[in-house]
Amino acid sequence: MDLNTPYDQENIFAKIIKGDIPCIKLYEDDHILSFMDMFPQSVGHSLVISKSATAVNLFDIDQDNLCHLIKGAQKIGNAAKIALKPDGIKLAQFSGNAAGQTVFHLHFHIIPVFENGHILDQTDPTDEAKNARLVKIAELIRKEINN
Amino acid sequence: MDLNTPYDQENIFAKIIKGDIPCIKLYEDDHILSFMDMFPQSVGHSLVISKSATAVNLFDIDQDNLCHLIKGAQKIGNAAKIALKPDGIKLAQFSGNAAGQTVFHLHFHIIPVFENGHILDQTDPTDEAKNARLVKIAELIRKEINN
Repeated sequence: MDLNTPYDQENIFAKIIKGDIPCIKLYEDDHILSFMDMFPQSVGHSLVISKSATAVNLFDIDQDNLCHLIKGAQKIGNAAKIALKPDGIKLAQFSGNAAGQTVFHLHFHIIPVFENGHILDQTDPTDEAKNARLVKIAELIRKEINN
Repeated sequence: MDLNTPYDQENIFAKIIKGDIPCIKLYEDDHILSFMDMFPQSVGHSLVISKSATAVNLFDIDQDNLCHLIKGAQKIGNAAKIALKPDGIKLAQFSGNAAGQTVFHLHFHIIPVFENGHILDQTDPTDEAKNARLVKIAELIRKEINN
């Protein structure tokens, strides 16, 4: 999957947009969708994707949809900042699997950073427990989203 | 330097914007400035900053300037993609030193990734040699910037 990979309509995020696969949703409007990363690098790790642009990476999205995405990342990041009180937040976007991209629908990662860990950072004994914890974290973030 | 750090007019990027400190420039317009990172994580590692917004991080910039920044990152990233032919490109923005932020003027990192290294990735015997190499890489990128 290099930087010129064509868009695959069957990628997992396309299926999430269509509603064929569930997600733990944080926010949705006409342009973007935000949901919890199911393999979080930290408490509150979430994603923002475009609903209308079928873009693989940073280099094949139009400017309008790119602006919607970054404004969405700011909105969700700000809510995570208020809800979870991290020490820092990383915003990241990977183009190409060499850069760490694993789903080939352009997405921004919002990754809160906690210097001394977070009370909700746990090892989950089951997938159900993990899911319940992500739902709980998502509820905290959603409350702080300024529409 | 937490997420509520106030803006310091004497930070190094503010001085670069004012012209008090030099940079190896890639691009400049009314809104943004792009230049080479002097401590590059890879060949072609560059930065994009806002000229008008005195924002510390993602959470204190207005939406218009945020859009200018992300469009600039796309423009510079695309030029680096064409000029250096990386296998991937990472886009990153760090808010708070816990997240890796070292200069407290909001900036986006554009970091090309090469699976098998790049011919211009060398160990420089002197600061002058390093500077000359960064100038050479910048020239390659600048040629591909679509104004």
